[in-house]
Amino acid sequence: MTHTSKFQTQKSQSPSYRDKFRAAVDTVRREGRYRIFRDIRRKKGAFPRATWFKDDLAEQDITVWCSNDYLGMGQNDCVVEAVKSAVDAAGTGSGGTRNISGTTRYHVQLEEELADLHGKNAALVFTSGYVANEAALSTMSKILPGLHILSDEMNHASMISGIRNARTHKHIFAHNDVADLEAKLKAIPLDAPKLIAFESVYSMDADIAPIEEICDLADKYNALTYIDEVHAVGMYGPRGGGVCEQRGLMDRVDIIQGTLAKAYGMIGGYIAADRVVVDAIRSLASGFIFTTSIPPSTAAGALRSVRILKITPEVRTQHQTQSNALKARFRAEGYPFIDGDTHIVPLMIGDPVKCQEISDRLIEDHGIYAQPINYPTVPRGTERLRFTPSPFHTEEMMDELMEALAQVWDAYELPRENVA
Amino acid sequence: MTHTSKFQTQKSQSPSYRDKFRAAVDTVRREGRYRIFRDIRRKKGAFPRATWFKDDLAEQDITVWCSNDYLGMGQNDCVVEAVKSAVDAAGTGSGGTRNISGTTRYHVQLEEELADLHGKNAALVFTSGYVANEAALSTMSKILPGLHILSDEMNHASMISGIRNARTHKHIFAHNDVADLEAKLKAIPLDAPKLIAFESVYSMDADIAPIEEICDLADKYNALTYIDEVHAVGMYGPRGGGVCEQRGLMDRVDIIQGTLAKAYGMIGGYIAADRVVVDAIRSLASGFIFTTSIPPSTAAGALRSVRILKITPEVRTQHQTQSNALKARFRAEGYPFIDGDTHIVPLMIGDPVKCQEISDRLIEDHGIYAQPINYPTVPRGTERLRFTPSPFHTEEMMDELMEALAQVWDAYELPRENVA
Ligand SMILES: Cc1ncc(COP(=O)(O)O)c(C=O)c1O
Ligand SMILES: Cc1ncc(COP(=O)(O)O)c(C=O)c1O
Repeated sequence: MTHTSKFQTQKSQSPSYRDKFRAAVDTVRREGRYRIFRDIRRKKGAFPRATWFKDDLAEQDITVWCSNDYLGMGQNDCVVEAVKSAVDAAGTGSGGTRNISGTTRYHVQLEEELADLHGKNAALVFTSGYVANEAALSTMSKILPGLHILSDEMNHASMISGIRNARTHKHIFAHNDVADLEAKLKAIPLDAPKLIAFESVYSMDADIAPIEEICDLADKYNALTYIDEVHAVGMYGPRGGGVCEQRGLMDRVDIIQGTLAKAYGMIGGYIAADRVVVDAIRSLASGFIFTTSIPPSTAAGALRSVRILKITPEVRTQHQTQSNALKARFRAEGYPFIDGDTHIVPLMIGDPVKCQEISDRLIEDHGIYAQPINYPTVPRGTERLRFTPSPFHTEEMMDELMEALAQVWDAYELPRENVA
Repeated sequence: MTHTSKFQTQKSQSPSYRDKFRAAVDTVRREGRYRIFRDIRRKKGAFPRATWFKDDLAEQDITVWCSNDYLGMGQNDCVVEAVKSAVDAAGTGSGGTRNISGTTRYHVQLEEELADLHGKNAALVFTSGYVANEAALSTMSKILPGLHILSDEMNHASMISGIRNARTHKHIFAHNDVADLEAKLKAIPLDAPKLIAFESVYSMDADIAPIEEICDLADKYNALTYIDEVHAVGMYGPRGGGVCEQRGLMDRVDIIQGTLAKAYGMIGGYIAADRVVVDAIRSLASGFIFTTSIPPSTAAGALRSVRILKITPEVRTQHQTQSNALKARFRAEGYPFIDGDTHIVPLMIGDPVKCQEISDRLIEDHGIYAQPINYPTVPRGTERLRFTPSPFHTEEMMDELMEALAQVWDAYELPRENVA
């Protein structure tokens, strides 16, 4: 059969398909959650300063207030040097999956370091924190047939996707609600395999799970525990081992998952656990096996970053100090922010359109970049600007932010709460 | 409720769980597919030479014959410089998801370049080729309710996982078999949305899909086409646009998927398609939205690599020349390899244990690294060593390989085919 011109080429251009793609995008637009990505360029050495490239590519200097490079490790000289020297030694990509020429000294050392960080005897690196969650959780039901997964209702999309793809019994418990969790555990046969999946720091709500109580319930009902410490590793605990380390609970959680892409300033994700757990996931998880491993230089940079943050607790103190300073100033102004126990400062707007407009005003008029967080990342009606002050946000930058916010707040006649 | 010592800590240590993890690993072992990763370090400037770190960390010089850095771009000086200078300019990680401070000039330019490469008006970069397939395919059924996906039986694990997670009608057609594909298309109502998912170069079998015939059928039955060109981009077509470019078929395929991790020597994956298709996937795919974007320096290195390979067709010629040279030598010796139209040279062993042993002999006795390819990457009974000669594999290296193979072949009394 040969191609004849009566056949349409590119079916995605044919009305039946084109309309459907367009309709999908229109729905997103109508729901006020169509995203236009801000095109920026970070400035190494001047973080959180960056350049914003507007539509016409005109450049504007901005201060980034919404980065997850929480500690500015992405510009740390030692990390940068580790990356560059690994590129010089070994080149750029790894050139293979972990099994087919893609395992290097750097990968092995990084896994050893991460295992040590979490007090486990093994760790496994994935291409991202998302893939770590998706691959590890979706594989659990292959290892434990009939598995029941108990999942906090606010869990991250990557966990939801892993749990969904596990295709096994699923129970959603109310956010951080141990009573509800216990009720759900009780209803499952005691001898059925169970896994409780939750986060330590919930990054959009800035709160922390009752880890110890959850572990107690896991013990009582013979359930495995799986914690996502993506927004905590590097930032909590004496060596940056996360909230579990801070609270002395690392040995009570079976699988600790983390990212190299936030506090560690690189990219990639991992799990740390007992060797037999890691070995089973390593051997069975499609998302681990069938993909090119992270570049040697990424592993080298992450290794350096983990090691640095292990021995510099003062960075964690500075980080909390900065965050507390911003919260104090928000509090003094009566801004409705979520006053949690973490470094994240969500300022509530409660409307997707306003949230976008305020963000636009801040960047266009004041060079302050705080991305609006809208549905589906947070529930509708809880739209917010999420501030992440780092040790590199100066007093002066904070003054600028407060001044800009005051102007925008008044212009939009937004409510203030009782000023303490 | 407080923790009492009668509760077991780390449930993964409790017999009920531990046994199951162990059993999962034991099954993998029993099936001869337990993988021990070779710990190596590539030598920039000397590719395909590398150092192998043995169990006791003793070092041995080796030649890598199984890398997917097919063209050695991972050590290209211009690519290395692009990476290093982006690290100097912008730091290491991106610090955010694409929507939340993780879109940079580098990402935008890379997507423009990839769209241009494939003659499309848009492209979208993911953290890996695996994630590109998984995210794009699993999202298709959200956009096209009632979608029927027709999938080549030899499709890569990442496509299988995307199709599985799409949770829609699925039809597996016999490998590269257009008659079977047509029979399956015919059985689906003409007005139901359909998508044919296939690869151009199948990397384990070294063969190429009948792309034009598949597009003809897609036209006839009003189906979308989705092609994985992971093992072809950079290596085929006048500008490295893949087999579709080589055969003048880019405008006939709706969605072209590729990787930055193989011929381009970096990491990351992408799709290129019509803007509305990209926009819909960009707006709806969880695996795209909820993960940190690739580092600015990764995007910068990939951009440079794509641009270099666009204008250096001679590298593609050298690549094919090398591959043909190896095939000619295998043929002369009567080794049973798959004599396909591609750069990949699979040498058939047909037994998982022998395949591993031969690979061990090659690296231990001769410093030649060719990873055994066993189930589940290939069907049982078709275990093989997969050679990927690059323009950097010298005549001398090829002599070494042939000599080593001859010794091992005789030692294991492996069969030779009729020598031409
Ligand atoms: C709680 C949580 N888990 C996992 C991830 C995914 O991590 P990564 O960005 O490394 O893919 C994120 C954010 O990106 C997250 O917020
Ligand atoms: C056909 C095919 N598609 C996709 C992938 C995944 O690409 P990546 O390594 O960029 O994740 C691979 C191999 O890794 C592959 O062989």
